[in-house]
Amino acid sequence: MNKITREASLSPKIDITHGAGTQNSRDLINNLFLKYFNNKILAELDDSAELKTSANRLAFTTDSYVVSPVKFPNTNIGRLAVCGTVNDLAMKGSKPKYISVAAILEEGLDIKLLEEIVKTMAQAAKEAGVQIVTGDTKVVEKGQADKIFINTSGIGEIYDKAKVSSRNIKTGDVIIVNGNLAEHGVAVLNARHNLGIKSDIKSDANPLNLITDKLKKFHPHIHCMRDLTRGGLLASLVEISEASKCEIEIDQNLLPISSQVKSACEILGLDALSIANEGKFICVVPQNFAKKVLAEIKKHKYGKNAKIIGKVLNKKQGKVFLKTEIGTRRILKLSEGENLPRIC
Amino acid sequence: MNKITREASLSPKIDITHGAGTQNSRDLINNLFLKYFNNKILAELDDSAELKTSANRLAFTTDSYVVSPVKFPNTNIGRLAVCGTVNDLAMKGSKPKYISVAAILEEGLDIKLLEEIVKTMAQAAKEAGVQIVTGDTKVVEKGQADKIFINTSGIGEIYDKAKVSSRNIKTGDVIIVNGNLAEHGVAVLNARHNLGIKSDIKSDANPLNLITDKLKKFHPHIHCMRDLTRGGLLASLVEISEASKCEIEIDQNLLPISSQVKSACEILGLDALSIANEGKFICVVPQNFAKKVLAEIKKHKYGKNAKIIGKVLNKKQGKVFLKTEIGTRRILKLSEGENLPRIC
Repeated sequence: MNKITREASLSPKIDITHGAGTQNSRDLINNLFLKYFNNKILAELDDSAELKTSANRLAFTTDSYVVSPVKFPNTNIGRLAVCGTVNDLAMKGSKPKYISVAAILEEGLDIKLLEEIVKTMAQAAKEAGVQIVTGDTKVVEKGQADKIFINTSGIGEIYDKAKVSSRNIKTGDVIIVNGNLAEHGVAVLNARHNLGIKSDIKSDANPLNLITDKLKKFHPHIHCMRDLTRGGLLASLVEISEASKCEIEIDQNLLPISSQVKSACEILGLDALSIANEGKFICVVPQNFAKKVLAEIKKHKYGKNAKIIGKVLNKKQGKVFLKTEIGTRRILKLSEGENLPRIC
Repeated sequence: MNKITREASLSPKIDITHGAGTQNSRDLINNLFLKYFNNKILAELDDSAELKTSANRLAFTTDSYVVSPVKFPNTNIGRLAVCGTVNDLAMKGSKPKYISVAAILEEGLDIKLLEEIVKTMAQAAKEAGVQIVTGDTKVVEKGQADKIFINTSGIGEIYDKAKVSSRNIKTGDVIIVNGNLAEHGVAVLNARHNLGIKSDIKSDANPLNLITDKLKKFHPHIHCMRDLTRGGLLASLVEISEASKCEIEIDQNLLPISSQVKSACEILGLDALSIANEGKFICVVPQNFAKKVLAEIKKHKYGKNAKIIGKVLNKKQGKVFLKTEIGTRRILKLSEGENLPRIC
């Protein structure tokens, strides 16, 4: 009986009534979102979720995801939206706990595609160990959005001894990255433009808290962590060098980039250092902790290609330098203009 | 010098580079958002904000705002986005503390309009006493969004004795509303369609925590609070009647609706009970607290037209009844189809 009601009430496409506070809106929430997002807190369906916490320091973050296309090699916008926010929480030395999901849907969106995305979000949340506790759905007219935009915000509990910030890096610190660079961005571009690059380059969208949770024993010696999303490794390095006023040097010979990604970047005229990742982060620690932290990261499947890639030189000017393959040294800057839009 | 840099770096329209992790993205954040959103937590600019809390129960909520047009009588999408999320936190018996702001911008958006919206958000946050602590900006190509969509998520600290939920209403409880209904929805419709209804009907988008904070002395006797947004009074009553399995009756003669809104609804063929408000809520309390709670609400400028509008009858079937002006009684149901899209 319930099954009949459900199938009768869900049309194959999103229409404007699914977002207007009507019975159709409620059917969409009850029969699709709550089918996959299923926990006691969310089920209360009050204006806000009620959360319990014993932490006195919380991490709080938000990101909207507008990636185009919404499906790309390995996964879709749903996994990106969960992992992206989980990772931002993890980078603050916190244990990600709670996630919100707010979807803006374009009229005409295929409900099967929406269901696939929602299912993927539920799977990613399960893998990351976070609960989706509150949500929102809006619908806009056809042509007023591009299929689906998803905002996720999240709350994490900061580990007791953690003191992680861009400002905290120090002369002599070592920079570790957990694996191969630029895969997410290249995978999305390949899917977007049908570039026909025959490769198995896949998005690396993964929950990094599975690694950073294992690193909690090293706090307060982890000075900084950053996930290398929009703007890639370069944007993160520029930001922490400016925030800390420290000079950073990375070594081109040490950067982990797969030969496939290198070739794709050459063909497309792109700089792998500026391309978004969704499952890569840098961890900046004092030299004497570097080996232990690296070993711990390498134990995890999302860190097995981890490498030390550079170091923090001195605290004078917030600049980033690249030691090139041929041993010269050049300054790295953010590009001014067009980068890669809608990569996340 | 700084001023020259700033003016040189901000073009009059949003372009795709403002969202791509480039120097232009950073200029937009530093020179526009941070100009108005200004506090120590946000200024850290790490992947997550670090928050302190001593509460062990938190309220957490999210909403995306896609209202069209973005400006309407009294204010704009910015005030709506702050107040809407603040109000959802307040309705859980919490003190709203921290807000995130994530904007999706359409290429070509006038930067002056964006600045007006951001400024309005800062003013609303100040009035509500919340801090904007983390944010995100994305840009999509012209025609892939409608000017600006804003997501705000928020965290509140639940008052010690508060036990506020849709499920908690009880037989004999009294339903209070803090003022005139349906103003936000009618104001937006008037602005959207240039209806030419000559009136001063204005959006009521206001931070309700300024009232609910004064009600905290009544906890745990406040059984339920709901703000009457999308779907209006009717949607809220249907939801709490279903969640609690209680029968609710409201009295048409007691409903506060201005004569201007009544006329507009008659002209437009709309039901004022289903129209969105953004500064109205119902508060459900036992009979013996009703007078005191009403008096406290009426003290505030956002509650001076507060009224008792109905009561909770019995716990048998979750239905909502209207006692009409002529004394008959009819059941109220959610509409199935088209309501009023993009009203919030």
